[in-house]
Amino acid sequence: MKKARAPRIEVIAVGSELLTDRFQDTNSLYLSRRLADWGLRLSFKTVVGDEAEDLGMAIRSSLRRADLILIMGGLGPTEDDRTRETLAGCLKRRMIFRPEILKNIEARFRKRRLPMPPSNRKQAYLLQGAEILPNPHGTAPGQWIRQGRKMIALLPGPPRELIPMFEDHILPRLEEAKQGCLIRRVLKAAGLGESTMEERLRDVYPAVPPNMILTTLAAPGDIEIQLSMASRDNDIEAVSAMDRVTEMIESRLGSCVYARDNIRLESAVAQLFSLSGLTLACAESCTGGLIGHRLTDVPGSSAFFLESVVSYANTSKIRRLGVPRAVIEKYGAVSRPVAEAMAEGIRKTSGADIGLAVTGIAGPSGGTLRKPVGLVFIALADEGKVDVVRNVFPGNRNQIKAQASQKALDILRLHLQKILRRTSLGQGRTA
Amino acid sequence: MKKARAPRIEVIAVGSELLTDRFQDTNSLYLSRRLADWGLRLSFKTVVGDEAEDLGMAIRSSLRRADLILIMGGLGPTEDDRTRETLAGCLKRRMIFRPEILKNIEARFRKRRLPMPPSNRKQAYLLQGAEILPNPHGTAPGQWIRQGRKMIALLPGPPRELIPMFEDHILPRLEEAKQGCLIRRVLKAAGLGESTMEERLRDVYPAVPPNMILTTLAAPGDIEIQLSMASRDNDIEAVSAMDRVTEMIESRLGSCVYARDNIRLESAVAQLFSLSGLTLACAESCTGGLIGHRLTDVPGSSAFFLESVVSYANTSKIRRLGVPRAVIEKYGAVSRPVAEAMAEGIRKTSGADIGLAVTGIAGPSGGTLRKPVGLVFIALADEGKVDVVRNVFPGNRNQIKAQASQKALDILRLHLQKILRRTSLGQGRTA
Repeated sequence: MKKARAPRIEVIAVGSELLTDRFQDTNSLYLSRRLADWGLRLSFKTVVGDEAEDLGMAIRSSLRRADLILIMGGLGPTEDDRTRETLAGCLKRRMIFRPEILKNIEARFRKRRLPMPPSNRKQAYLLQGAEILPNPHGTAPGQWIRQGRKMIALLPGPPRELIPMFEDHILPRLEEAKQGCLIRRVLKAAGLGESTMEERLRDVYPAVPPNMILTTLAAPGDIEIQLSMASRDNDIEAVSAMDRVTEMIESRLGSCVYARDNIRLESAVAQLFSLSGLTLACAESCTGGLIGHRLTDVPGSSAFFLESVVSYANTSKIRRLGVPRAVIEKYGAVSRPVAEAMAEGIRKTSGADIGLAVTGIAGPSGGTLRKPVGLVFIALADEGKVDVVRNVFPGNRNQIKAQASQKALDILRLHLQKILRRTSLGQGRTA
Repeated sequence: MKKARAPRIEVIAVGSELLTDRFQDTNSLYLSRRLADWGLRLSFKTVVGDEAEDLGMAIRSSLRRADLILIMGGLGPTEDDRTRETLAGCLKRRMIFRPEILKNIEARFRKRRLPMPPSNRKQAYLLQGAEILPNPHGTAPGQWIRQGRKMIALLPGPPRELIPMFEDHILPRLEEAKQGCLIRRVLKAAGLGESTMEERLRDVYPAVPPNMILTTLAAPGDIEIQLSMASRDNDIEAVSAMDRVTEMIESRLGSCVYARDNIRLESAVAQLFSLSGLTLACAESCTGGLIGHRLTDVPGSSAFFLESVVSYANTSKIRRLGVPRAVIEKYGAVSRPVAEAMAEGIRKTSGADIGLAVTGIAGPSGGTLRKPVGLVFIALADEGKVDVVRNVFPGNRNQIKAQASQKALDILRLHLQKILRRTSLGQGRTA
């Protein structure tokens, strides 16, 4: 594999279930990430069923085009598990029974006080010339085979067996194919759409060096910007090139950037609460509990999150939050004054420092010409002041709920950052 | 393709981003499902990047082994979009400029009052002998090519363009390859683990006819059982075989079966509320709003769901729900008496017919020897009666929240089914 070009790597996932709409081959995502960390790139991914004929076709195609082939799955004890024999056929190698593997398998069963079914015996066969890859988490060992310049690995399908084997026995064997390492950076941003981001980053793209890759991944209200760059180990120039591009992006996106790590917005908000020492209570209508759910996904959130009142019915808004019935009747439950009253109400009745309220129309029904589906008011009450933002979110019910919760969390984040800057408690740590 | 064996179908997804850990090829899941509905089965799935050399290798491999090749992606106007030219090279066909396609593309831009970039011109090229597959949702038309007995489709990558093209122009062309249709059934069950289900279905498996496939998919607290069977159109025998197996499964799993369709538990609960006319209010502690969020994901949930109080702090439990401070101090916030008081409290203070309460330790910290992480009490209060269930769920914080919400919804479901049976309102509709 010491050619000028990078080695072509192919992953073959074996299993008829992976060809249905019920299962995804997620193993290959893990492998592609770890190969990238190692400075290597996947060239082909193939999924094939358990039939020996199809599997043989897939392996032969791969032998023609790839330098390194990682075959996952089909090493089990059942009739359907034919990867070993099929590969042996393709490589024209014999299968050799190895008593020491059988002893290992028998020992595993003994330990669990189970008799070993006779079918497990087939797992003790190795392709002629293969190296054993130990599998401490299952019965089937992996196999490592060199065929001319090509390298082939037979790996078990279950992730809990595959991952340790890949980490401990495959990656070290790729040392010679390794081309430095990959430096990666992630920036997370909220509060701007994909096209606005593209517009703002327009002059950044030409400044990205040719060996650096800038990728953006946009979800509604949430943007992930990833920078990656192959480099030799300890390459100071690569790191400073990365720093330059990162700083350009940050200056173009300003306060929209909420993290320099791959964390979720709720985690960034939780960090700011912990820095500020403030407490929060929420009044949710159309988000239905999603804001509370997201915040309480963060370990330790009980330190700042006191409560959320999910006021779906108007009586709940009136009784729990003290929203005046007359205001609801005059303006409607989805309105600026009601959002304001909900935020003030939850703040007062909970005793929290900050009250956050959301009221809107998630659809599919309930919209009118003046108040369309997707209309959402978000209010934030702090000591003596309430701010309300009007939004119209596109999409279906779930998408509207998701965007409303994202926007509400972002409003919280910006508010906390402002407070922390003012009190200069969190200088330099608030982005 | 009029051979005895079923045609080999391969999907090739083109795009370097699909070889990273950031994107999954989800199009092929859709295609595999629709092919199955059509009685056809996918044999190979390949993912390959944008490089012409790799793409050519993937196409040539596929031409050797597959009868029908569906190539998705790389039909755009950019430099990276090379699927058309690469396929033409593999098939040794010329590319032919078709002015009528260009006119269509220009018209699309005119309609949006945008100038057409010159790069879009390349989308007006067709492989010699190809049929045009119209694309009302994008600029690149699809192409349909016959090469000897093989059929090849070039399809756009974006799902909103791909799906209509596949439905309107590919499926009808597969009529001759079609082998009857696939009958499918889905059963959903809650409240039992995977091994319990396997145990209970032990005598069902041998009764499944050889041409029927029974697959189970278990998530924590939620099981999906899928039956599928290839059949000729209007095959009464196949349907009644399906009915027999379905009934066997239902009798073994009893009240755990919550739906005969692929719906989520919250939708089943919402249906029961709508049948019963009752209303609900929740008091959530460790689930943090997740129960409210799940229920309000169901359109129309405002008809029965009045409110949820997410009482994370003890003061919230005391003030909002009227849980006696002494009870919390004596038994702790995570205890049977507090769950009971929360359920009664939310029922009374909300005016709802049913009060549901959850209190537990989601972790990672806060557990003790007597009250471990994962301990969750779930209480249901109905007129004059409160039932409390103690659970210990395994897993991390998010998994514990998910399982607690699932169990709480299942308790609601069983309670509503009992009520409906008693009042014989919902006879025959409650499963």
